[in-house]
Amino acid sequence: MKKTSAIGATALVLPEIVKAAMPESTSTNAVPRYKMSKGHVILFQGDSITDAGRSRKDEAVPNMPSQFGTGYALFTAASILANHPDDNLILYNRGISGNKVFQLAERWEKDCLALQPDILSILIGVNDFWHTKTGGYTGTVETYVADYRRLISQTKTALPKVKIIILEPFIIHGGTALDDSWENAFAPYRTAAKKIATDNRLIFVPLQSVFNEALKHAPAAYWGPDGVHPSMAGAQLMAQAWLKTVI
Amino acid sequence: MKKTSAIGATALVLPEIVKAAMPESTSTNAVPRYKMSKGHVILFQGDSITDAGRSRKDEAVPNMPSQFGTGYALFTAASILANHPDDNLILYNRGISGNKVFQLAERWEKDCLALQPDILSILIGVNDFWHTKTGGYTGTVETYVADYRRLISQTKTALPKVKIIILEPFIIHGGTALDDSWENAFAPYRTAAKKIATDNRLIFVPLQSVFNEALKHAPAAYWGPDGVHPSMAGAQLMAQAWLKTVI
Repeated sequence: MKKTSAIGATALVLPEIVKAAMPESTSTNAVPRYKMSKGHVILFQGDSITDAGRSRKDEAVPNMPSQFGTGYALFTAASILANHPDDNLILYNRGISGNKVFQLAERWEKDCLALQPDILSILIGVNDFWHTKTGGYTGTVETYVADYRRLISQTKTALPKVKIIILEPFIIHGGTALDDSWENAFAPYRTAAKKIATDNRLIFVPLQSVFNEALKHAPAAYWGPDGVHPSMAGAQLMAQAWLKTVI
Repeated sequence: MKKTSAIGATALVLPEIVKAAMPESTSTNAVPRYKMSKGHVILFQGDSITDAGRSRKDEAVPNMPSQFGTGYALFTAASILANHPDDNLILYNRGISGNKVFQLAERWEKDCLALQPDILSILIGVNDFWHTKTGGYTGTVETYVADYRRLISQTKTALPKVKIIILEPFIIHGGTALDDSWENAFAPYRTAAKKIATDNRLIFVPLQSVFNEALKHAPAAYWGPDGVHPSMAGAQLMAQAWLKTVI
């Protein structure tokens, strides 16, 4: 097997939007990028944005497109696999629609720890707020923070070498599922996710900045009509932001 | 709406494999690249490789990820949309599993001409050979050529301004669905597709070269286990090859 240049292969020139939203100096939360190694296991965890309609069939088989849905996890995984063909990487998506952080915790043993990820990417938070408005959920931002910190702590104890990536929960302003109350009420969840990343020295992917930049070019209907679930174009921006920040 | 630099946005640095397989001087079949314009309609046509499990629901609505399946058409479309947010592009996938070129012709009025594409991407040919071995199909490579030339001619007459892209039909050597007879017997279909592109001055995407290069890094199990249907990694290579050649 011929060796590919990892630098050349991953040095993607990004969509202008991602470049504008994530200047080099602030994008990585001062945490070094990860170097992909042979046999690494990469796990995507989260809610419907990560799930993106994935099949639950044959979940144990990694790297299957049908199990990655049609969202950012698929686009990110496909890029990683195409750029690291010599590394025998193993990728899983275990996002589940509707999840809040406490629901990740309930299935963490089976859907995270048992898979022994080397790289663990988490996007969670929008339902922790949304379901207080529509689902009768009574958790607050303090619940979110406490649950999220406990989840990270538990993961670091069980898997001391795991590299955890926190993706900023975001909204796409102007989306049909949002009302005016979201702007101020959801901000603390974003801030909390960033602080958890900083405190634990985890890579943080600033997705709200990416979507704010994107909205200068086209409205929410283009990037994620309901303001929560990204379109194809929105998911591709997320994947490019992930790749720019993480590897 | 702010104007993005189209040059910066589309100048992707490609996976090493695509770069190695497609040196600049030979990649575009001497046909100029296409410049994406506002409101352009882009249509992906083909067989199961293009279909890739797409939903048939709400087919009339463009740019829907569920309708793009999980193959190269999705990856290509998502990249185009993310990189051209100011252009109101309209993208469709109308690949149907099992199709041979004469079956494209049977549904061409509805699934191509009626959509009035500005850019039409076609990948067809593997079933024209495969089904002679497994499906009782009696067409030959001459049938393929005659049917394909008629389809292109009909399309150019109905849509004089359409830019047509021919993707090279390919096999991934070592795949489980292939036997030794494929190597020589399928080559004439590839050659024919290229000649049709050259004769009509259409962009040709040399996918066989891409997969041959990919096989230097990992076996068919990685790029497309059965040798016909690309994996996530294989589909991503195809998308990058498409983007490198076409826009």
